[in-house]
Amino acid sequence: MLNLRPVVYILGWISCAMAAMLCLPAIIDAVFHNAEWEVFLLTAIVALFIGGVSIYATRPKGRPEIGLRQSFLITSLGWIVVCLWSAPPFMHVGIDFSDAVFESMSAITTTGSTVLTHLDSMPPGILLWRAILQWFGGIGIIAIAILILPLLRIGGMQLFKIESSDTSEEKVFNALRTVIAVFSVYVGLTVACAVLFEVFGMNSFDAITHAMTTLSTGGFSTHDDSFAFFKDLRLHWIATIFMIAGSIPFILYIKTINGQWTSLFKDQQVQGFMLFLVLVSLLMALWLTGQRDIDFFQALTLTTFNIVSVVTTTGFASEDYTTWGTGAVGVFLVLMFVGGCSGSTAGAIKIYRHQILLLLVRAHIKRLFSPNRVIPLRYNGKPLPADVPNSVLSFLAVYVATIAVFTVLLSLMGLDIVTAYSATITAIGNVGPGIGNVIGPAGNFSTLPDAAKWILVMAMLAGRLEVLAILVVFDPDFWRT
Amino acid sequence: MLNLRPVVYILGWISCAMAAMLCLPAIIDAVFHNAEWEVFLLTAIVALFIGGVSIYATRPKGRPEIGLRQSFLITSLGWIVVCLWSAPPFMHVGIDFSDAVFESMSAITTTGSTVLTHLDSMPPGILLWRAILQWFGGIGIIAIAILILPLLRIGGMQLFKIESSDTSEEKVFNALRTVIAVFSVYVGLTVACAVLFEVFGMNSFDAITHAMTTLSTGGFSTHDDSFAFFKDLRLHWIATIFMIAGSIPFILYIKTINGQWTSLFKDQQVQGFMLFLVLVSLLMALWLTGQRDIDFFQALTLTTFNIVSVVTTTGFASEDYTTWGTGAVGVFLVLMFVGGCSGSTAGAIKIYRHQILLLLVRAHIKRLFSPNRVIPLRYNGKPLPADVPNSVLSFLAVYVATIAVFTVLLSLMGLDIVTAYSATITAIGNVGPGIGNVIGPAGNFSTLPDAAKWILVMAMLAGRLEVLAILVVFDPDFWRT
Repeated sequence: MLNLRPVVYILGWISCAMAAMLCLPAIIDAVFHNAEWEVFLLTAIVALFIGGVSIYATRPKGRPEIGLRQSFLITSLGWIVVCLWSAPPFMHVGIDFSDAVFESMSAITTTGSTVLTHLDSMPPGILLWRAILQWFGGIGIIAIAILILPLLRIGGMQLFKIESSDTSEEKVFNALRTVIAVFSVYVGLTVACAVLFEVFGMNSFDAITHAMTTLSTGGFSTHDDSFAFFKDLRLHWIATIFMIAGSIPFILYIKTINGQWTSLFKDQQVQGFMLFLVLVSLLMALWLTGQRDIDFFQALTLTTFNIVSVVTTTGFASEDYTTWGTGAVGVFLVLMFVGGCSGSTAGAIKIYRHQILLLLVRAHIKRLFSPNRVIPLRYNGKPLPADVPNSVLSFLAVYVATIAVFTVLLSLMGLDIVTAYSATITAIGNVGPGIGNVIGPAGNFSTLPDAAKWILVMAMLAGRLEVLAILVVFDPDFWRT
Repeated sequence: MLNLRPVVYILGWISCAMAAMLCLPAIIDAVFHNAEWEVFLLTAIVALFIGGVSIYATRPKGRPEIGLRQSFLITSLGWIVVCLWSAPPFMHVGIDFSDAVFESMSAITTTGSTVLTHLDSMPPGILLWRAILQWFGGIGIIAIAILILPLLRIGGMQLFKIESSDTSEEKVFNALRTVIAVFSVYVGLTVACAVLFEVFGMNSFDAITHAMTTLSTGGFSTHDDSFAFFKDLRLHWIATIFMIAGSIPFILYIKTINGQWTSLFKDQQVQGFMLFLVLVSLLMALWLTGQRDIDFFQALTLTTFNIVSVVTTTGFASEDYTTWGTGAVGVFLVLMFVGGCSGSTAGAIKIYRHQILLLLVRAHIKRLFSPNRVIPLRYNGKPLPADVPNSVLSFLAVYVATIAVFTVLLSLMGLDIVTAYSATITAIGNVGPGIGNVIGPAGNFSTLPDAAKWILVMAMLAGRLEVLAILVVFDPDFWRT
């Protein structure tokens, strides 16, 4: 039997960290005399108690023995623990447990699908809580994507293993230094975004909460109209820039700051990402100008904002783009698969995987008609490690199969096929809105049956952890010693 | 520059073969005094002339030099030539060139999507022509799948390379013997199916045409109501059995006849295929019994027939299954991806690829948590050849990407997302009906815009040739010497 003590031990610490995080809105609410401070404090106390008991019961003699399999369990169960402690405050606004879990999973995975309505009259503590969860969810996934997923070799993430020293102390020190640097960049970008939002007309609360959900590519808004609430188009462009900033490999910011000035622009993934966004936005703006009676700049603002929002898996909407015509629906449905860069807050398949898939398929096609030709596979100027092709291709197979299974399950629960399919894609890609009248950019997820919400909770978690990190635990061999 | 002379030479012979085939309905129509014999004869003469000129102009001195790249070109252009010579007779019933090409591509790829309405009052020559095209399309793809695709190593088809002698004469002789044996089995099964259809109540014309479109898993009917026209449920079960018979590797029939009695039942692909069909049909019958006021046997007949029809990529409908509820729509949409066995008339992804994908993903997952473990990959009792995993995974990537591109193109042409997506899947999988009011099992493709029809023509061809066989010609390196 697998040794689960270190798993419970770390989960205990995660519980205690959640207790600390719950104190944040509790204090702010108390200061501003909002009634919800009690529910935050109460949840914090329970989380602290259960976390403390878990730590005490499983405390190791020396350093906890965390192997590969324990790492997998901690990664997936960690998100579930965080989700469960984030949920209770949401029940304070009158939604049931299923809805609360949906909202908190959507928050911490930076998906941004919501079951809440009348956001504009919601207690500020709750709105702040949603933003805080997305913001910490964002930095959480960056840390995991930089430190843990490359070691777990999930879906080709081994490409992004950071070079580290041999000694184990140095390794921990390097990891710590990286996390602190990345966290500083994340905070810096969020502050910059908030300041700009406020300068161009948002009130402080909106500026702070939207900056948090923009950088984390989460997409929760404090308004039912999402970003359409803000009429100043300059705000839309600021959000566009910072959504992109949140979808770029954070490790490249560190390199740029550390003097490798060009690393951000020389990176093949960033180049592909930017080129793709520019091309699709321009083409769609041209198309939209032909369709509607608006000038090109207006069209470009609309298309760029909404395309960037979907591709970076943020999920803000500045207009219901599904009303632009059948072509727009098709394009946005496919865009939900794209995703941002690795090691960022963005979800979905991600740019580097598309680039590697293209590389592999082109090489495969060439070998079909010239069987003896040797085709070197290079990515970002380096030869592709031998196990990356299979990792990326297996990831795609699992991603596609998961979508098929979840779509069928949701359709069996009575969702029409467009809702079932787009809900699955948007959840597994951590995007936010789906397609159709119910869950489209102008709708929300509140009317779905509870069972469908639980399935989407699983899809969001699976998507956030690149599906494979969840799937391993379903292999019976995983549990054998 | 690639030597195209042998390509044109073989295409010339294909043209002449088409001329011969066009004489078949011409003679039958002349005998039964139907007016369309003229259009068939005229097309035959033109095909013979152009084919003859091509052969004469490019006749080689010795044996034509057909390399790997010429084989790719002949395979894809061959289908286009056949399609073009099959189309003119359809224009006789008042449809335009786009529609005629759509109908003939749908026929020869054994897809079975139709743009024709009022089939019941259609001239019998045209109805027979549709059946003949599907029937020859079926045996054509079996021959290609057995003889050519394994040599082209398309999507893991190298697994099914038949063992052959070393000398080149022996090889040709073996290939010829295999084709004759497979053709005999195909004829035998078709005759058996036709006889049973007639015994249980169809008239001779319906029995023959439906037997041809059943064995070829094509799915063209002589009635607008498709198979729902026939009320006797025993006919549905006969069709079910022969649709399955058409989707089994034909090489296994030969082995069985040659004394290896158990090869049909011991084959891992056939086992997986049958198990899948039985499980899905039973589960769905149970579900349907709960949904509607019908007994279990009635439900089982309905589900088995329609599930087998979609999975074998035949496309007959005994009822509009999309009205069974949202769950049925979801299930049938996913079933369109499944496909039959390799080396049969069935299209789509095919069973052996799903089995190999499952094998690869399971091994990949195990290696994630036990990196040093050696996991042997075995299929059908033999070790998997080294290049098969990459072939199958690349096939999946290309298949998924093609669906995305075609869905976007169709949606840009004004098709709603369900129609655009399901039309793409049904075309690339050579299934037949799609989902939705327009192209669902109760509808047809006649109202789609012409541009959409041309895109679907490309999708049907791409799907029939396993996508990769078409994609190679788009690589500039393909044309370099």
